[in-house]
Amino acid sequence: MELKKLLEQQSAEAWEKYIPSLSIDCVIFSFHENALHVLTLKMKDQDSFGLPGGYVQKNENVDDAAVRILKDRTGTENIYLQQFYTFGNLKRSESVFEGYDDNIWNKQRFVSIGYYALAEHSQVKLQIDQYSNAVEWKLIEALPEFMMDHRAIFDKALLTLREQLNNHPIGYNLLPEKFTMPELQKLYEAILGKKLNRGNFYRKILRYDILTKLDESRKGGAHKAPDLYSFDLEKYNAALKEGLKGSW
Amino acid sequence: MELKKLLEQQSAEAWEKYIPSLSIDCVIFSFHENALHVLTLKMKDQDSFGLPGGYVQKNENVDDAAVRILKDRTGTENIYLQQFYTFGNLKRSESVFEGYDDNIWNKQRFVSIGYYALAEHSQVKLQIDQYSNAVEWKLIEALPEFMMDHRAIFDKALLTLREQLNNHPIGYNLLPEKFTMPELQKLYEAILGKKLNRGNFYRKILRYDILTKLDESRKGGAHKAPDLYSFDLEKYNAALKEGLKGSW
Repeated sequence: MELKKLLEQQSAEAWEKYIPSLSIDCVIFSFHENALHVLTLKMKDQDSFGLPGGYVQKNENVDDAAVRILKDRTGTENIYLQQFYTFGNLKRSESVFEGYDDNIWNKQRFVSIGYYALAEHSQVKLQIDQYSNAVEWKLIEALPEFMMDHRAIFDKALLTLREQLNNHPIGYNLLPEKFTMPELQKLYEAILGKKLNRGNFYRKILRYDILTKLDESRKGGAHKAPDLYSFDLEKYNAALKEGLKGSW
Repeated sequence: MELKKLLEQQSAEAWEKYIPSLSIDCVIFSFHENALHVLTLKMKDQDSFGLPGGYVQKNENVDDAAVRILKDRTGTENIYLQQFYTFGNLKRSESVFEGYDDNIWNKQRFVSIGYYALAEHSQVKLQIDQYSNAVEWKLIEALPEFMMDHRAIFDKALLTLREQLNNHPIGYNLLPEKFTMPELQKLYEAILGKKLNRGNFYRKILRYDILTKLDESRKGGAHKAPDLYSFDLEKYNAALKEGLKGSW
C-alpha cells in the first residue's frame, strides 16, 4: 500500500495510542568490516533515507519506548542505549507530509528525543517495517541524503560519541569480544574523524591498562597474524568512572 | 488567588497556546558568596520547592521557549543556556495536581526538557510569578525538598556540569570578570563535589595557560589582598575545544 493511504488509515489509532507532540529517533551505530556504520531506513514514497524512530505510548516511560523501537528494528533489547539530545525546531518535518490532511497524526508538530545505540553487529537481525522499502547499514563516511533534520540528528549523535569516548564504554559496546589493535584504532579514528598515529595510539591505549592481551591471534590473513585483545571490564569501568585522561 | 482556581481559569488558554505533552525545566546556577547556588521557586499551595519552568508555544522553537522562560525569571537573555536531558517517566508529576479535574492542562502527562543555565549573579533580577510565593537562590549543599522529579533533574544537571567542566566555558560563565584563585577553586570544588588540594589546583590551572593575572588585587580583606585573575578568552576557548586535559 502506498505510504499516504497507510498513514491515513492508521492515524486515528495513533492519536488514541501515543502521547502527542513527541517522537523518538534512534541513531544505531555498529562497527563491522573495519568501519563505523549507521542504520538507515528508506521510507516508501520518499527519495531520501531516514533514521528509525517511533512514538511514545500513553502508558510508557520514554526510555522504555526507545527500547521498544530499537527492538523492533534490531531484533534485540540487549543493546547499549543512551538519550543524547532533543530536537525541537519548528518545521523540522513539515515538508515530508505535504499534501496530507492537516489532522493526520504524522503531519503534526513533533519534538524528537534522540537516542544513540551501540550495537554489536553480529547480534543484529535487521527488521523492515510496513512504512519502509529498505533497511540498510550505511558507512558514516558515505551517508546518503537524509530526510527531515535527520542529518543534524546523526551529526549530534556522532559528536556525542566523540565527547563521551573517555567516559562511556563505547569501544566495548561496538567491538566484538575479541579484537585486534588495528580494529580498535580504526574505531577510534572513525569516531574522532581523524587519522591517528599508530605508535602513539598503541602507547596510549596500553598505558590505560584496560585491555587484556589474549593467548590467540587472528587467523587467516596473508600477513603475520595480529594479536587479539579483549577489554578488562573491571579496569575499563574503573577508568571510565575517573575519565580516561588525555586527548587523542 | 489560590493556585487551583488560577490554573483552572487559565487551562483553556494553555490548551490553545502550547503544544501538548511537553514542558521545560530550568536549572539556573549562579556562584556568589563563594558558593554555588540554584534558583528555586515555592509554588502556592505546595510545601516543597521547584525549578522554574514552562511550556512551548505552538509557534516557537523549543530552544527559544527556554530562552523566554529564563528571561521571565532572571530579567535577562544574556545567559549561557544548554539543553542537557529530557525527563520522560510516567507519573513524574502526577501527585502535585491531585484533586484537579482530569482535563486541566497542568494535570496532563508532560515530558520535560531540562536546560541548565549559568548566570553571573550580579546580572540577575529575580522575578516572581503568579503561581509562586517565593523565588530564592539555594545553596546546592543545602537544598530544600523538591516537588515532582525536580531533585533528579537538578542532580542530572550538576552531573552534566561535572562532565562538561573540561569542554564547556563553565568557569567563565559563573564567575565575575575578575576573580581570585581561591574563588575559582571553590567553584571547581562545588561542581566536582570534593575538596581539592590547593597547591595541586594552582599548578594545574596555571599549566593550562588560560588565565590572565591582573595588575590589581582584591581590596578590603584583613589578610594580604589576593591577586585577581580573568580568563584569557582566546586561549580558554582554544583549550576547551581540545578539551582541558587530566582529571581533578
